[in-house]
Amino acid sequence: MPQATKAFAGEPPVPRPTARSLFDWFHAVRFQTQALTRSLSPEDMVSQSMADASPVKWHLAHTSWFFDTFFLARFDRGYQPFDVSFRSLFNSYYDAVGPQPARARRSQSHPTLLRVLAYREFVNDRVSSLLSRLDGNRPEAFDVLMLGLHHEQQHQELILTDIKHALSLTPLRQSFGAPPAPRGLGRERLHFFARPEELAWVGAGSGADFSFDNERPRHRVFLEGHALGSRLVTNGEYVEFIEDGGYQRPELWLSEGYQLVQREGLRAPLYWDARDGQRVSFTLAGDQPLDPHAPVCHVSLYEAEAYARWAGARLPTEAEWEQSAERAPLDGNFVESGWLTPAPAVSIGEGRGPVQLFGDVWEWTQSAYGPYPRYRPLSGALGEYNGKFMVNQYVLRGGSAFSPRSHLRPSYRNFFPASARWQLSGIRLAKDLS
Amino acid sequence: MPQATKAFAGEPPVPRPTARSLFDWFHAVRFQTQALTRSLSPEDMVSQSMADASPVKWHLAHTSWFFDTFFLARFDRGYQPFDVSFRSLFNSYYDAVGPQPARARRSQSHPTLLRVLAYREFVNDRVSSLLSRLDGNRPEAFDVLMLGLHHEQQHQELILTDIKHALSLTPLRQSFGAPPAPRGLGRERLHFFARPEELAWVGAGSGADFSFDNERPRHRVFLEGHALGSRLVTNGEYVEFIEDGGYQRPELWLSEGYQLVQREGLRAPLYWDARDGQRVSFTLAGDQPLDPHAPVCHVSLYEAEAYARWAGARLPTEAEWEQSAERAPLDGNFVESGWLTPAPAVSIGEGRGPVQLFGDVWEWTQSAYGPYPRYRPLSGALGEYNGKFMVNQYVLRGGSAFSPRSHLRPSYRNFFPASARWQLSGIRLAKDLS
Amino acid sequence: MPQATKAFAGEPPVPRPTARSLFDWFHAVRFQTQALTRSLSPEDMVSQSMADASPVKWHLAHTSWFFDTFFLARFDRGYQPFDVSFRSLFNSYYDAVGPQPARARRSQSHPTLLRVLAYREFVNDRVSSLLSRLDGNRPEAFDVLMLGLHHEQQHQELILTDIKHALSLTPLRQSFGAPPAPRGLGRERLHFFARPEELAWVGAGSGADFSFDNERPRHRVFLEGHALGSRLVTNGEYVEFIEDGGYQRPELWLSEGYQLVQREGLRAPLYWDARDGQRVSFTLAGDQPLDPHAPVCHVSLYEAEAYARWAGARLPTEAEWEQSAERAPLDGNFVESGWLTPAPAVSIGEGRGPVQLFGDVWEWTQSAYGPYPRYRPLSGALGEYNGKFMVNQYVLRGGSAFSPRSHLRPSYRNFFPASARWQLSGIRLAKDLS
Amino acid sequence: MPQATKAFAGEPPVPRPTARSLFDWFHAVRFQTQALTRSLSPEDMVSQSMADASPVKWHLAHTSWFFDTFFLARFDRGYQPFDVSFRSLFNSYYDAVGPQPARARRSQSHPTLLRVLAYREFVNDRVSSLLSRLDGNRPEAFDVLMLGLHHEQQHQELILTDIKHALSLTPLRQSFGAPPAPRGLGRERLHFFARPEELAWVGAGSGADFSFDNERPRHRVFLEGHALGSRLVTNGEYVEFIEDGGYQRPELWLSEGYQLVQREGLRAPLYWDARDGQRVSFTLAGDQPLDPHAPVCHVSLYEAEAYARWAGARLPTEAEWEQSAERAPLDGNFVESGWLTPAPAVSIGEGRGPVQLFGDVWEWTQSAYGPYPRYRPLSGALGEYNGKFMVNQYVLRGGSAFSPRSHLRPSYRNFFPASARWQLSGIRLAKDLS
Repeated sequence: MPQATKAFAGEPPVPRPTARSLFDWFHAVRFQTQALTRSLSPEDMVSQSMADASPVKWHLAHTSWFFDTFFLARFDRGYQPFDVSFRSLFNSYYDAVGPQPARARRSQSHPTLLRVLAYREFVNDRVSSLLSRLDGNRPEAFDVLMLGLHHEQQHQELILTDIKHALSLTPLRQSFGAPPAPRGLGRERLHFFARPEELAWVGAGSGADFSFDNERPRHRVFLEGHALGSRLVTNGEYVEFIEDGGYQRPELWLSEGYQLVQREGLRAPLYWDARDGQRVSFTLAGDQPLDPHAPVCHVSLYEAEAYARWAGARLPTEAEWEQSAERAPLDGNFVESGWLTPAPAVSIGEGRGPVQLFGDVWEWTQSAYGPYPRYRPLSGALGEYNGKFMVNQYVLRGGSAFSPRSHLRPSYRNFFPASARWQLSGIRLAKDLS
Repeated sequence: MPQATKAFAGEPPVPRPTARSLFDWFHAVRFQTQALTRSLSPEDMVSQSMADASPVKWHLAHTSWFFDTFFLARFDRGYQPFDVSFRSLFNSYYDAVGPQPARARRSQSHPTLLRVLAYREFVNDRVSSLLSRLDGNRPEAFDVLMLGLHHEQQHQELILTDIKHALSLTPLRQSFGAPPAPRGLGRERLHFFARPEELAWVGAGSGADFSFDNERPRHRVFLEGHALGSRLVTNGEYVEFIEDGGYQRPELWLSEGYQLVQREGLRAPLYWDARDGQRVSFTLAGDQPLDPHAPVCHVSLYEAEAYARWAGARLPTEAEWEQSAERAPLDGNFVESGWLTPAPAVSIGEGRGPVQLFGDVWEWTQSAYGPYPRYRPLSGALGEYNGKFMVNQYVLRGGSAFSPRSHLRPSYRNFFPASARWQLSGIRLAKDLS
Repeated sequence: MPQATKAFAGEPPVPRPTARSLFDWFHAVRFQTQALTRSLSPEDMVSQSMADASPVKWHLAHTSWFFDTFFLARFDRGYQPFDVSFRSLFNSYYDAVGPQPARARRSQSHPTLLRVLAYREFVNDRVSSLLSRLDGNRPEAFDVLMLGLHHEQQHQELILTDIKHALSLTPLRQSFGAPPAPRGLGRERLHFFARPEELAWVGAGSGADFSFDNERPRHRVFLEGHALGSRLVTNGEYVEFIEDGGYQRPELWLSEGYQLVQREGLRAPLYWDARDGQRVSFTLAGDQPLDPHAPVCHVSLYEAEAYARWAGARLPTEAEWEQSAERAPLDGNFVESGWLTPAPAVSIGEGRGPVQLFGDVWEWTQSAYGPYPRYRPLSGALGEYNGKFMVNQYVLRGGSAFSPRSHLRPSYRNFFPASARWQLSGIRLAKDLS
Repeated sequence: MPQATKAFAGEPPVPRPTARSLFDWFHAVRFQTQALTRSLSPEDMVSQSMADASPVKWHLAHTSWFFDTFFLARFDRGYQPFDVSFRSLFNSYYDAVGPQPARARRSQSHPTLLRVLAYREFVNDRVSSLLSRLDGNRPEAFDVLMLGLHHEQQHQELILTDIKHALSLTPLRQSFGAPPAPRGLGRERLHFFARPEELAWVGAGSGADFSFDNERPRHRVFLEGHALGSRLVTNGEYVEFIEDGGYQRPELWLSEGYQLVQREGLRAPLYWDARDGQRVSFTLAGDQPLDPHAPVCHVSLYEAEAYARWAGARLPTEAEWEQSAERAPLDGNFVESGWLTPAPAVSIGEGRGPVQLFGDVWEWTQSAYGPYPRYRPLSGALGEYNGKFMVNQYVLRGGSAFSPRSHLRPSYRNFFPASARWQLSGIRLAKDLS
């Protein structure tokens, strides 16, 4: 009989953050958000390319709104907001806070960019001032601030995915100004790392530094013996799938996926195109030749599933993925590398376990996004953060080349509908042990 | 450390069916399908009320097509089909067989009902004849025939759900001719039966009488301690939810569900209406006063979820449900009772475990429909039967008042999209053990 | 200065119909409607292929409803209707009568065909009985009855166009049972008949036998000198247009038309197809080889316009058409010929004027459907018959191979949206005099 | 017999413009376009509120594109365009020039506003330079330049209508910065001016200063005796229609119009709202109280028709309107007044004829937009300017408070679909003479 492999009780306590450390981190994160938008004109920032993506200006305002609404209005006595109309205007989906503009109408010329930047300054000043007055006896205030910073990091990633989508639709496929991706790095052979069956612990423990409510509580899952791919699936491998007629073979696809392929005439991942007979892919550096050794990216769950079936494998479950990730170092190609695109795998000290688990691309799992056993959402409006989306979405793991490193951890659960392709989403294979 | 409660290896072998027993069951099932349609005019039978529902005439033809395509064409040497154009015409979704008419266009005046009935006769004759020639050395032929009979039983249920939907949309809400539902039966108090944590066996074993591929293989799942409601949620209880503003309180709903509620103005389960200030529900006996003690029916997963949250409970997982069902007798209100509508719970010998697990209504679980570990679809075109639908659907368990008893078992997995309401779908509550 | 060519005042008075003549004509028309449906099964009769087309069963009921609502309920004292629910159920679009089912939901299994036929009998009996009691002092009753009969003749034509559309969509393109069309008749050369400029009288005079309100009052229109094509445009001529790339040349098209062509991938008239490299067209006799000398049929106004531009001509105005039609004999290929499809032009005594003005196909004009000067709709609910549709529709003239001869006259104005193709609509060219 | 009232041959010849006068007018018009956008931010200029409306930045670019494509590229030898990609990018609908972006996707962040302004400068310079080299022997070049300037004036009006629509949808209904409308001007009583029947001349003569091809050729139309309202219908009169249940009475409406009213829940003209129990209307000065004496504006043809029927009148035909307009002075409330909103009628020297014929609001007529007899579109790509839209649109006459005075004339034909409401469209009544 297998045993849970990591004791729940044995975790060392994590020290609580101090007001000072939060102050520093708050300003670093807020600064970083604006730094990402430096190359953009006001017209870029107001562009909304589809209902799923939001304008950059909206992201700048909404992340401020989060602190305004959940931190300042609650913990700062006598607080006067910057503009009362913003309470509704920049609400994303919190019904308990009040009504919201329709998602597809987030592109608004007013308030102007200048006014949104003034709103950011105002919120920065008030948070600084309040932090200098709060003491350690208000842990719930610190918790909300931490949540706000992780929230802002999520929107940093969305700023990049959303502007990438918008720029890809400009008539001349405008570059964001990123440097060309590094080429000619690794050429790792794909192999599989086996793990025996086990009763595994999954999720974030109560003593963790930070986690979202959807990662909790830590709990046991029985896993069959399985093996995980040593690296991500590459563009070159995916081209073989395409050239083998992958998009024309219904037997490889989930039914919904194949209907989508036919309805939209899909034949390749999002952003792929051809120039003079050569495959290119749109990146934040504009159209770039496809690197056969870089991870395939911008695929839907349907494409990931079909590829895996074609390759004689399957997608991992989120619990399988997490078992390997808990044993791996938290390093990889994150936003800090500056590449802003997935890069080929490089193994140093090969043989220890899968690489590219963190960064590069979010990895589709076969796991539907649902509540962990005994899951409890946060109380109040913040309970809407994660729980109410637990239907018809699928879990992705590991982070991407757009994620800040400090935002990630093995238990992190990202989630998107099976059809989503504008995120940096890719494929890791898994297999049953025979 | 919990142990799996039922040994995998210990199941007694089930005797294989004989050609004679299959012959008898084949004719019984085929007769029953037509018996269900006795009260319908040709115009009723061609009516298609929405893309999800099919005309009765189509069901009569498609169930014959199944034997024609997968049994006769494969196992009967020199077989000449009734009409070659039917191969495509009555194909539902088997891409490996060939193209299919669009789902929403299954209402066709030609071939006429008379010709479809002749097609049924032809198939019946040819199957009888082939069965008399097949011997026990062709187990794969017997397997396909068994599959075809369970397939036909599924369509018996769909004939009733689809014609109910069609009749409900006739201007005068035409009755199907069923007797009025029994009233004034039980008034069971709802309580919960607890089960401790365990490493449980789930799914159909290889020795079972019959199972679909999606129920296999039998495997282990770790379950936390939990409790299951002693009976189904009733109409009376659901009315309390409505009158407490349930449909206007976003905090009770999954986000997608609440959007649907607002977009479509939902305020009650499908088929509910009011006549002279009294709540009625459309049934196969026409509009009938709502029985407060009968199980609530025709709710979506969204409604089931919202009700459970309002009631301070949650929906069970499919594995939790199966643990209780494996220990319960396989009896209940099935199509054989002739009531054709869910009925109040009646406990005889209360205290042993939950009642109404089988029959009455399909019970929504919180489990997304996905593959069991090491799942393998059937080979060939029949591999499309279940596997390709394993995304964006949710599992329902237990069968309904429209299901034949012989079609059900504890491991049976039904599945529908979260928004589906025209099936006989209802609610059983579950709770965590504190 | 041109003079109006036909004096308004000089028309001889038309004798009013008698109760006896109306009785005979009523039964002839009512019988003819049912005779048209003789080859159809109940399933055919309930089929609705698109929102614009209605099921045959609905036509049978609605034409009876017209007499029920506007004649019997108004003029028969103490009248008890057959079924009060039919008042709303078979209302097409008369808001003053009350609410109506949505157009797209006219396919209803209930009431059944048998009950609709009983409704027809009931209405026939009551009209006969009332007619025998009415005397000549009730001219407004006679007027309504006449309107009802012309209304029923319009629906006779719609029964044929709508069932043609429905049968064309059956998987095997089921025949209605009409005889194959006559072939090898005429091969008339196209030439043009000139008319000098004139101040012409247009519309139905007050003394006419019968006319709809939209044909009245007779009034003057100034016409420039012009010429009208001697016959309809043929399939053979239209094929030349197609083979000259007509559907791929935007300069030939109205902008809306070309968008439709691109959006729907149009490349030929409705119902055209290819079998073994030969062009065929679906008719009431099933698919038939295209006769190059028969008039092209089932084209939209957009196609008619584009063809005319390609041919260096234009479409006539309705006033131009009417000037030639007033001078032509009212004969042609009507429903009475039994061919049920347009036929090649045959000139006997050529040189007098254009042929095929009546019957064969409705001829698109460039005239938007609008009110004549001083137009007054009928009073009451019957005012909704024509007037409220006078926007975004275009006038067609002359009748078709589905029209009863007694239903037509030179001033008759038919109207459909520019995109309509399921009517028997074709093309006659016109030219300016240089 | 009536005679045509104005001789065709008797018009005095209009002197052709000189290069010098075109140079001056070109710079005046080009300057005026940019002057209109002075109060807008880059984000305002990129906003596209619906497919029918275009972003201001697009208007700035497209009007330059017109000179670039049709004037410079054709008449300037060795011309090098500013950016070859603009040829397609800012093409509106000229298929002969090449492909165009979809109408609904005219909001593009790139090229940026700065680059579009540089494009305007470039085109201005090259046109100036070419004009200084062209002599009077190139009348076709002068004709194209004149067309380009009238084209740009049309877009000046569209800039105002489109930004008004966009600003109306900003969450706080942002003002454009216009001054509040003048109030308390006239309170003219409505009466009617009669005209006897006549054979009238309609359209622009060949000797006119400038006209679009759709106004030509001048031709005769027979008009019955009729009377035209002495002024426009006012807000106050329209409020009476609303308060009399106008929007809930199907008998007043065209069928399509009433369906639109029900589907969209319309109850008032576009931009009307209520603040503290008072009716307001959104204007370029933000929300303003409704002036009961100002002309009603932002109504569809459906609303204009329904109002006229309620008032016991009808809409004029375009020929009727033109007869009165030819006899009226070309003055009124144009863009030059600076009010940027319709204003109450003021009569000086009342009794001579209707007032407000020019300026204030475009007046819906009952005339479908179609070709005049012997109409010939311009040759080449410019033939697409007007002719290809001659279906399913209706003619409006007279200009609006957003029109430049020099852009208007009695024969001017504006056209929009019957449902359009975002233009400055209003109502003038007409009546038959009894």
